[in-house]
Amino acid sequence: MNAEIISIGDELLIGQVINTNQAFIAEKLNSIGISVGRMTTVGDDESDILQSFAEALATHDLVLVTGGLGPTHDDITRTAVCKFFGTDLVVNEEALERVKGFFEKRGLLPKKINEDQALVPRSCTVIQNHHGTAPGFLFERHGHHLMAMPGVPFEMKAMMEGFVLPFFAHKASGLVIQHRTLKTTGIGESFLAEQIGDVSTLFGPDDGVTLAFLPGPTGTRLRITVRAKSAEDARKKSQLVEQRLRSKVGKYVYGIDEEELEQVVGKLLQERRLTLSVAESCTGGLIADRITNVSGSSNYFERSYVTYSNESKIADLGIPSALILHHGAVSGEVAEAMAACARMKSNTDIGLSTTGIAGPMGGSKEKSVGLVWIGYSDRGGTLALRFNFGDDRRRTKERAAQAALELLRRKLLKIEL
Amino acid sequence: MNAEIISIGDELLIGQVINTNQAFIAEKLNSIGISVGRMTTVGDDESDILQSFAEALATHDLVLVTGGLGPTHDDITRTAVCKFFGTDLVVNEEALERVKGFFEKRGLLPKKINEDQALVPRSCTVIQNHHGTAPGFLFERHGHHLMAMPGVPFEMKAMMEGFVLPFFAHKASGLVIQHRTLKTTGIGESFLAEQIGDVSTLFGPDDGVTLAFLPGPTGTRLRITVRAKSAEDARKKSQLVEQRLRSKVGKYVYGIDEEELEQVVGKLLQERRLTLSVAESCTGGLIADRITNVSGSSNYFERSYVTYSNESKIADLGIPSALILHHGAVSGEVAEAMAACARMKSNTDIGLSTTGIAGPMGGSKEKSVGLVWIGYSDRGGTLALRFNFGDDRRRTKERAAQAALELLRRKLLKIEL
Repeated sequence: MNAEIISIGDELLIGQVINTNQAFIAEKLNSIGISVGRMTTVGDDESDILQSFAEALATHDLVLVTGGLGPTHDDITRTAVCKFFGTDLVVNEEALERVKGFFEKRGLLPKKINEDQALVPRSCTVIQNHHGTAPGFLFERHGHHLMAMPGVPFEMKAMMEGFVLPFFAHKASGLVIQHRTLKTTGIGESFLAEQIGDVSTLFGPDDGVTLAFLPGPTGTRLRITVRAKSAEDARKKSQLVEQRLRSKVGKYVYGIDEEELEQVVGKLLQERRLTLSVAESCTGGLIADRITNVSGSSNYFERSYVTYSNESKIADLGIPSALILHHGAVSGEVAEAMAACARMKSNTDIGLSTTGIAGPMGGSKEKSVGLVWIGYSDRGGTLALRFNFGDDRRRTKERAAQAALELLRRKLLKIEL
Repeated sequence: MNAEIISIGDELLIGQVINTNQAFIAEKLNSIGISVGRMTTVGDDESDILQSFAEALATHDLVLVTGGLGPTHDDITRTAVCKFFGTDLVVNEEALERVKGFFEKRGLLPKKINEDQALVPRSCTVIQNHHGTAPGFLFERHGHHLMAMPGVPFEMKAMMEGFVLPFFAHKASGLVIQHRTLKTTGIGESFLAEQIGDVSTLFGPDDGVTLAFLPGPTGTRLRITVRAKSAEDARKKSQLVEQRLRSKVGKYVYGIDEEELEQVVGKLLQERRLTLSVAESCTGGLIADRITNVSGSSNYFERSYVTYSNESKIADLGIPSALILHHGAVSGEVAEAMAACARMKSNTDIGLSTTGIAGPMGGSKEKSVGLVWIGYSDRGGTLALRFNFGDDRRRTKERAAQAALELLRRKLLKIEL
């Protein structure tokens, strides 16, 4: 069973609103084995809406429509579905009671345009809206379905969970689709692809498995998609592919699905009862910000010295001014000293540091924009690694923070750097 | 001139990624007078891609395509455009040099699949990618254009700004559409609406002007949209509406369009030759991170003490332990002391501080989750303001950082708090 999602609304076409409904609906449909073949967005224009309905129903088993069911003049989905399915509007008593109750609860009287929300197409199945006044409409034609829902995200979500998913899960073919995403960092997309090699060694052409590379600024996600007869089958196939991937590039995999690197290292620090302090120059507080996004981080995170100026490196961390003078603030020597001093001054188990040239100014022939040194220090020793993260200031900060947290993860797990 | 936006990628159809590219592109096209008639999302499937190209080009003057230009096996847009326009791939020397340079700068050698990124359709105009390795392709057929761009947002955005917008702005005709957004903070959307009052006092029904309220977690944007015969006309209308808005809610307006609060305060500090240091507890480095996102911030930003633990507040800032014991770390007294100590220890003109309960744990009956004190200190005195930013951890950090920067802005401009 396949589906198309149609979003209706001028606010989408002028870019005023980012469409989050489509991703939500797509994910939910996938979870019940319905794959989405296309997503379309059209404006509040009747002929565009009718054309999109015709195209979608011709090629998809299920068409989910959101938006344009509200009470104002620019909401025309209701009249459009009537035209499309050759029907007219009648009052739905249950919907009318709901509209009245909705306003009564708020101490208000409904206006005519609100009561008109209870007008529904004669030939459809009406799906009541438990969070607003616009009901949903389900049509069937030649075994294909079109379902119109409100565009307000929480009203749509409630209708998806309460009606659409259970109803169509039952109808869907039976194939289960599962996704699992391995998040990698510290290796470029093409190098990752090379180390993974021919994907046909991971799964056969008829296994119902696909692997997608999703590169981002701080790492590449590897998404395994599995189609199988049962959830158990899908899980087993997915596990096997994950195992094979991990045997090739496991060292770069820091997390699964939505897991963030700061959560992963937070958990490791907590388990090992280790404490951390940070000394940040070019990342300017971003590492501390990420670490403290994790609830409970006060258990292992002590402090960060955002020592942007040389004076603060000297005064707050105790870096010898001669070291900065001799090697420059952006150097492996200073990165090491920052990590070691942060650790000792705060009396923590681990110190982490960054110093670099975020740009766009401040580069030189020897030290180009994007050069970053990352330092690490624990009782066993101190080291610094050299990187270049390119010429975009924010990007460099993000990549440097990611690389610092990844260095910490590898040290905690004793993975080679 | 009208346009269709086509996004390509399985990750969109399974709902893994929310499509932010479409809204970005739509808004930018609108700004140069090109209206978007439809947005379509298809997967990494050649026949779906070809069909979407055919439908889009048949009904729109301009088709903007994003995604599927990367180096891995699931990136098939390049071969699809070749098939569609009946051409083949040739090496583009400039793109090849860029690929090599891109890797060289990072101390790496490009692989075959990276070098293949320099293979471009023979019959198109190649648009170089200044932020990645995949160039863009511009095709023309019967006066209609198709432009394929990378799907990585910052690469796409650079190509939009650098090439697509200037090129097609020139081609577009008819009415000029201008947007201008006043960014406000420190006041809720409904209070803002109340202070603005009836919008018909701002512009008449036939003025071609609309005003949109766009609420966000750290403030509400007021977007003025003007349609006019000339850019000059549009500018005048927009100015008039802006003046009227500012006379009502000017004190809350910190910036225009994409301007960030950290840029605004950075400029003010620079102009006044003032220096700043920060002491952060609950914001965990976010204020410093935002300040250092601005190029040149080292001219006025000295350092931040991310003093997450009480020990660090005492040791690094010199807060008397009795003060913390007596009032608690989350108190106006400690916020004031943090701001004053940060200023004095770092020898800057201004000190700014935050201390609060980001949650979800750590709240009590007297001090609930979301409570944040923000401190400010300069030679003229020290003060602290009390806020509650709700029960979402990240949200509280963001709102606290925003409120701290806004406090700084108002003090610098001598606006009442």
